[in-house]
Amino acid sequence: MGLVVQKYGGSSVATAEHIRAVAGRVSRARESGLDLVVTVSAMGKTTDRLLRLAGEVSRDPSPREIDQLLATGEEQSVALLAMALHDRGIPAASLTGPQAGMTVAGRYGSGVITEVRPERIQKLIDGDHVVIVAGFQGMNSLGDVMTLGRGGSDTTAVAISAALGADRCEIYTDVDGIYTADPRIVPEARRIPIISPSEMAEMAWRGAKVMHPRAVELGALYGVEIHVKGSFSEGPGTVITGGDDLERLETRETVAGIVHDLDVARVTLNGIRTGPGTLSRVFAPLAERGISVDVIVESGLKDGKADVAFTVRRGDFAEAREVAEEIAVSLGGKAEGEEKLGKVSVVGTGMLNRPGYAAKMFDTLGEAGIPIRMVSTSEIQVTCVVRAEEVEEAVRRLHGSFELEERDV
Amino acid sequence: MGLVVQKYGGSSVATAEHIRAVAGRVSRARESGLDLVVTVSAMGKTTDRLLRLAGEVSRDPSPREIDQLLATGEEQSVALLAMALHDRGIPAASLTGPQAGMTVAGRYGSGVITEVRPERIQKLIDGDHVVIVAGFQGMNSLGDVMTLGRGGSDTTAVAISAALGADRCEIYTDVDGIYTADPRIVPEARRIPIISPSEMAEMAWRGAKVMHPRAVELGALYGVEIHVKGSFSEGPGTVITGGDDLERLETRETVAGIVHDLDVARVTLNGIRTGPGTLSRVFAPLAERGISVDVIVESGLKDGKADVAFTVRRGDFAEAREVAEEIAVSLGGKAEGEEKLGKVSVVGTGMLNRPGYAAKMFDTLGEAGIPIRMVSTSEIQVTCVVRAEEVEEAVRRLHGSFELEERDV
Repeated sequence: MGLVVQKYGGSSVATAEHIRAVAGRVSRARESGLDLVVTVSAMGKTTDRLLRLAGEVSRDPSPREIDQLLATGEEQSVALLAMALHDRGIPAASLTGPQAGMTVAGRYGSGVITEVRPERIQKLIDGDHVVIVAGFQGMNSLGDVMTLGRGGSDTTAVAISAALGADRCEIYTDVDGIYTADPRIVPEARRIPIISPSEMAEMAWRGAKVMHPRAVELGALYGVEIHVKGSFSEGPGTVITGGDDLERLETRETVAGIVHDLDVARVTLNGIRTGPGTLSRVFAPLAERGISVDVIVESGLKDGKADVAFTVRRGDFAEAREVAEEIAVSLGGKAEGEEKLGKVSVVGTGMLNRPGYAAKMFDTLGEAGIPIRMVSTSEIQVTCVVRAEEVEEAVRRLHGSFELEERDV
Repeated sequence: MGLVVQKYGGSSVATAEHIRAVAGRVSRARESGLDLVVTVSAMGKTTDRLLRLAGEVSRDPSPREIDQLLATGEEQSVALLAMALHDRGIPAASLTGPQAGMTVAGRYGSGVITEVRPERIQKLIDGDHVVIVAGFQGMNSLGDVMTLGRGGSDTTAVAISAALGADRCEIYTDVDGIYTADPRIVPEARRIPIISPSEMAEMAWRGAKVMHPRAVELGALYGVEIHVKGSFSEGPGTVITGGDDLERLETRETVAGIVHDLDVARVTLNGIRTGPGTLSRVFAPLAERGISVDVIVESGLKDGKADVAFTVRRGDFAEAREVAEEIAVSLGGKAEGEEKLGKVSVVGTGMLNRPGYAAKMFDTLGEAGIPIRMVSTSEIQVTCVVRAEEVEEAVRRLHGSFELEERDV
């Protein structure tokens, strides 16, 4: 008998009918002889609705109370899914994150799982139950519920898989796998049958919304084989594995896919005096305010002065620009910014040993007449910041020039 | 500094605007120098909405999962109220029932508070916080959340008042106190300024919806002074007390009020053989199914046979009748029933030492041409079962004949 952990996202449990469909899916897996732990997110737009309510009662809701509030979304889903399984005659029990032994630390709203105490889950499995665990939450050292931040249900599923030594972790979502690019933009995009964790994490960080990057990294760390599948389809999906298949993958693949992100804004400090410690003087105040900075570019020195540009999420743009203005002035410069930008990234482990991929990317965008605002590279990706309105065209061109639609799948 | 426990019902926290209004009320109490613990119910129709969802995913949802599901309603309210207090600059912390140390036992859906471990509440009070506790729930010996059944938020508030030795427990509701009859039916009905716990409990059991009878009894047991007040008004409300004022009350009052209940159906077993143990043979199967029986009347023997009639809630009518049919047949009789009935009760400690109140009640209904189907009496109340359509007229007539509108208030 194998053990499988399944995770269903919010759109998979959006209505009573959806929940009954998930129960059907779980029931079929059980009939095949598997032991099952299922984690679910809150129903559809529940989290957004609760956050809106919070905004209506308070201008600046406390993170602890936000977590108390949001945790209820998943708690409703798990109870409803357990009921739907009972209705099919399947023994099932729902557990909140704290009941399931999910131990978290860190800040409210962005907790990190530090330990899974799987005794209660294991006992229920031994008693032949399907165990339904609320995703996205755990208990901190004060005995309070703490959420893992959005997308955290993926992390819950992978952490439980690791703690129980599950055979695999299945992430069900509204698309049926990972694609070489967003199929809504590139109709020729192909499903990627197998991908390495490092590529998947990079794609997730760079904009692929299918899976949370932290969950991918956790999976890689504990050797959990993750399958990304469609909630409403029966296809094989995408397998994320660092195991035996990886070598084959490394030799066969070059570029895994093109990902993009439209939630990008740029802030630039122009003509600031630089010296040792300048960068930390710029970025420490942003970090203190919890503003994540992504791409950072520093221009070369000119008359002892330099330009420093960085990207943030659009929601952080106004605050980041304000902070930057203050720092820039104190360093003899000034700040400016641009809000409607996007990022396009080419991701693939194959890039590691083959130079020229960055050049090919720049060429492609140049030929398309798309100006590149900023560039960032690492071992397995090249990212270009472009104007938001040009992102889709950039994705299509790159998908073509890297011949992703041609690939033998 | 005094300590007051306040309880706000679902209609008092139905929207974000209502929650902000409650925060205003809590804030004024705090400004008067009080320490405060506040318990709240789920917002408006949340519980009904969740039960509907449960019905959509399962034909027969398990009680444990129903409790997991329903508990989230109160958990949302407490987090939102804490946020609304923060927004006014008031330190506040929300606690779920389990976090607040509410220990319960019994059956899911109708748990009974067995202990309050008030350490965490007390610590927060000592740290100058307003403590917001989710009503209607606690933790059972398995570590699971268990609800107290509908109306249980009142019980939560009274239990916390008892555990903390609060100066008083204020129950805020959508009416501004207890009335001599439902003012929607009897416009001349008067607010009762002070009432004994036994009268209040009797009125609550007999149909007064304002407060849960179990909470009244718990308050009496632990000597908690309860004030029933309007959420949206500033009046003095009704004080429920068994203290120094009681003697004054006993001598002054005769009948406290007229209450009614439209959720009544009757089942009768006709012509059954009776003997020792017959009644338990009739009622044990009903109790096993969780069907509450209220008024019971057994007719005198005739040829060794008797009629046994009892009332149940309308929701239990079909099942109760089915059970009754089976038993009646096995005892040589048959069962019949009537669904649309109501109860009218005259309640008052003054009745204790003064005979004739029952006679006066029967006279009044007789003069009004209202047939009495069943009668039940106890030391402080007389209840008549009549046809549902005649309940309102009965209440008006009784309110007049007992001169409740004339009373010096």
